[in-house]
Amino acid sequence: MPQTKILLDESDIPTHWYNVVADMPNQPAPPLGPDGKPIGPEALAPIFPMALIEQEVSAERWIPIPEPVREAYRLYRPSPMFRAHRLEQMLGTPAHIYYKYEGVSPAGSHKDNTAIAQAYYNAQAGIHRLATETGAGQWGCSLALAGQMFGIDVRVFMVKVSYDQKPFRRSMMHTWGAEVFASPSPHTATGRRALEVDPDSPGSLGMAISEAVEEAASRPDTNYALGSVLNHVCHHQTIIGQEAKKQFEKVGEYPDVVIACCGGGSNFAGAAFPFLADKAAGDPRAKNLRLLAVEPTSCPTLTRGHYAYDFGDSVGLTPLMLMYTLGHDFMPPSIHAGGLRYHGDSPLVSQLYHEKLIEAVAVPQLATFEAGVAFARSEGIIPAPESCHAIRACIDEAMQCKETGEPKVLFFNLSGHGHFDMASYDKYFSGQLEDYEYPAAAIDEALHHLPKVG
Amino acid sequence: MPQTKILLDESDIPTHWYNVVADMPNQPAPPLGPDGKPIGPEALAPIFPMALIEQEVSAERWIPIPEPVREAYRLYRPSPMFRAHRLEQMLGTPAHIYYKYEGVSPAGSHKDNTAIAQAYYNAQAGIHRLATETGAGQWGCSLALAGQMFGIDVRVFMVKVSYDQKPFRRSMMHTWGAEVFASPSPHTATGRRALEVDPDSPGSLGMAISEAVEEAASRPDTNYALGSVLNHVCHHQTIIGQEAKKQFEKVGEYPDVVIACCGGGSNFAGAAFPFLADKAAGDPRAKNLRLLAVEPTSCPTLTRGHYAYDFGDSVGLTPLMLMYTLGHDFMPPSIHAGGLRYHGDSPLVSQLYHEKLIEAVAVPQLATFEAGVAFARSEGIIPAPESCHAIRACIDEAMQCKETGEPKVLFFNLSGHGHFDMASYDKYFSGQLEDYEYPAAAIDEALHHLPKVG
Repeated sequence: MPQTKILLDESDIPTHWYNVVADMPNQPAPPLGPDGKPIGPEALAPIFPMALIEQEVSAERWIPIPEPVREAYRLYRPSPMFRAHRLEQMLGTPAHIYYKYEGVSPAGSHKDNTAIAQAYYNAQAGIHRLATETGAGQWGCSLALAGQMFGIDVRVFMVKVSYDQKPFRRSMMHTWGAEVFASPSPHTATGRRALEVDPDSPGSLGMAISEAVEEAASRPDTNYALGSVLNHVCHHQTIIGQEAKKQFEKVGEYPDVVIACCGGGSNFAGAAFPFLADKAAGDPRAKNLRLLAVEPTSCPTLTRGHYAYDFGDSVGLTPLMLMYTLGHDFMPPSIHAGGLRYHGDSPLVSQLYHEKLIEAVAVPQLATFEAGVAFARSEGIIPAPESCHAIRACIDEAMQCKETGEPKVLFFNLSGHGHFDMASYDKYFSGQLEDYEYPAAAIDEALHHLPKVG
Repeated sequence: MPQTKILLDESDIPTHWYNVVADMPNQPAPPLGPDGKPIGPEALAPIFPMALIEQEVSAERWIPIPEPVREAYRLYRPSPMFRAHRLEQMLGTPAHIYYKYEGVSPAGSHKDNTAIAQAYYNAQAGIHRLATETGAGQWGCSLALAGQMFGIDVRVFMVKVSYDQKPFRRSMMHTWGAEVFASPSPHTATGRRALEVDPDSPGSLGMAISEAVEEAASRPDTNYALGSVLNHVCHHQTIIGQEAKKQFEKVGEYPDVVIACCGGGSNFAGAAFPFLADKAAGDPRAKNLRLLAVEPTSCPTLTRGHYAYDFGDSVGLTPLMLMYTLGHDFMPPSIHAGGLRYHGDSPLVSQLYHEKLIEAVAVPQLATFEAGVAFARSEGIIPAPESCHAIRACIDEAMQCKETGEPKVLFFNLSGHGHFDMASYDKYFSGQLEDYEYPAAAIDEALHHLPKVG
């Protein structure tokens, strides 16, 4: 039997992040200010360090990774790639299934890849504190650890309903030395206003973003950090795909389909963009390569959203970005699990989808958990609910191969483990989860709430 | 900077388990039946497959690992070894600290190493169901996964108080297809009797063992599996130390001290016995090698217990084993965290300690969490509370090196992650945990409860 794990040496940790902008047929549309005019880098300076702003607007193909960041990556990178022999056997498919496992990072997901970079650049800029928001807690954990590594205090505004219901992600952040506040909190004007209206407010991701941004904008020693969506976050994640390409070389294969779940988009970007580079460079192996973003039917941003300028947050504090959006006031039912509930999508991912260089598919929730359980029972690892979306799509591709007899090479990114999501698995087993298709009427309605531009 | 991770190839997964009995100066004392006479292998046949019974009584140095077991090990083995650069830096110690990380296994601890082997041999023997007990749930998870791999149904009796308070380990077992019952349960005569006396009984590990053993003994298609203590379990874990030795060769070092936490003893055995083999073989590098078992002051089996024949369970169903024991009716306060609360210890570990071939130290609880948090903040990984004991002892050794200036090579086994133990970290942070020294009077008293032998 061929290898199960394909490992790399520490010297194989990429030396550069890849910037897909250099290979895009059309340059990205600029972000707009409240006046509808393109904003310059200086507009972001109050909350981001200049090094990250430069990456945000860069068109250079390769961005060097600073040595202290590579040094920190060595705690868990290169991450392993696995050949899913046992899953293939369970499915009876002729497909070769490979997955890269980002759950080996200390916080348990790909988010550490950018958290470490962001903490480093902020420390270099003399920043002593980072403020951020977190929903379920994954991103907050990654930033807490990264802050600890570079001597930065981290203040996390955690959506109150999660703060109360998911105490263990909170404890993890404490273990790594972060302060965690239930949002809305009395620490910001935004939070105080919300508490005045409703002292028992369950909070929302939009509210938590607003609190973190307010904190960062109002204190000179404090910056803001975002875990997905923005260009520099997508760049940082490309170490996933770069390593995967080296790992495929080691086994002498190349993928026919690259699959990743897509919420804010950085996980998909990280896995897929380095392969897109091969396509752009005319690599014959990549000629028919398909890059597949997988989203939930409850939040079908790419597959059913509008391609339009919209705010990045719910309350309209951020610049306007051209992206697929369900409207910044989008709110799916809270019973639905997973961190793929963002109303928008990375502008880079959105533009590539708009220009048909990548594909997208939406999958219903129960089918994703079914896939996750099949994966856990064959491959051992219990996947995060977000990652179950990629597994679902991969299994669907593998079953098509079974019908056609094609031994396609399928690759998906297992973005994280589900150790802190067992409550969702419980709900699945006890029949409390249900499928939900975001209604067409709500999507039509969103069109009327989009900010007017130009 | 030298390497952070020392990785091996899949071909480096050991081909044999090491049996320390072959290198012991005195042969192990035999287990005794209820009549005080040595029992033969046939006494174990109703609940164990013959292949495991043979390993239990074997004096062969090397036991071949069947290919399907090595195949399953490939999902997570060889496990990585790390050089703890960041921890060394935090401590300012000249010591070189290395740790092997068994938390990479799907269930998150070293327990998978023996669960896979036990499930395999039972499947080979035509067994369709395994019964076992679990306290906090770690062992139950490992056996659930291993059973799934080899087509064996797993029935876990989980101490009721844990069943109610730790639902996520339970969900993990469900995900891997196991049945989980709160113990005492209505499924066994033992459980029904206990429920008649007290319908709200919180259960105990002893009760859960009794239920699992009864289930196995009363059904021909069902066997029993134990996660530590027994000789064959210790053998299976030696793949840890064997891999570690290869990893030390790769970096050209050899440990001065090998450290592991010790509850039932199999984790310590797995890390330490292969190094003891070097000592027995007269390897000059191992001349001054120290092997250090670390236990809690709340359950100081080796450091303060009696070396005597005692039962393996609380209610006296098992054969008598010669071991260090605090008395089979030992019960520490339940506020105390961790899976190191067993009243006895592996007979092999006990005899080696009695003959002064290994050392032991007891550490208080708060100091172990302090060490665990320091480790998480420097090395990233949040350790299981059990593993925090090894970290504590390692840090103490490293701080001694700081005083003496000796650049000793310290090695400890990080037996598992703490992702399902965040409630214990919470209690630590909120000041709800306390130190507890098991009272000398209780230890003296235990002497009177030991079964009479001969």
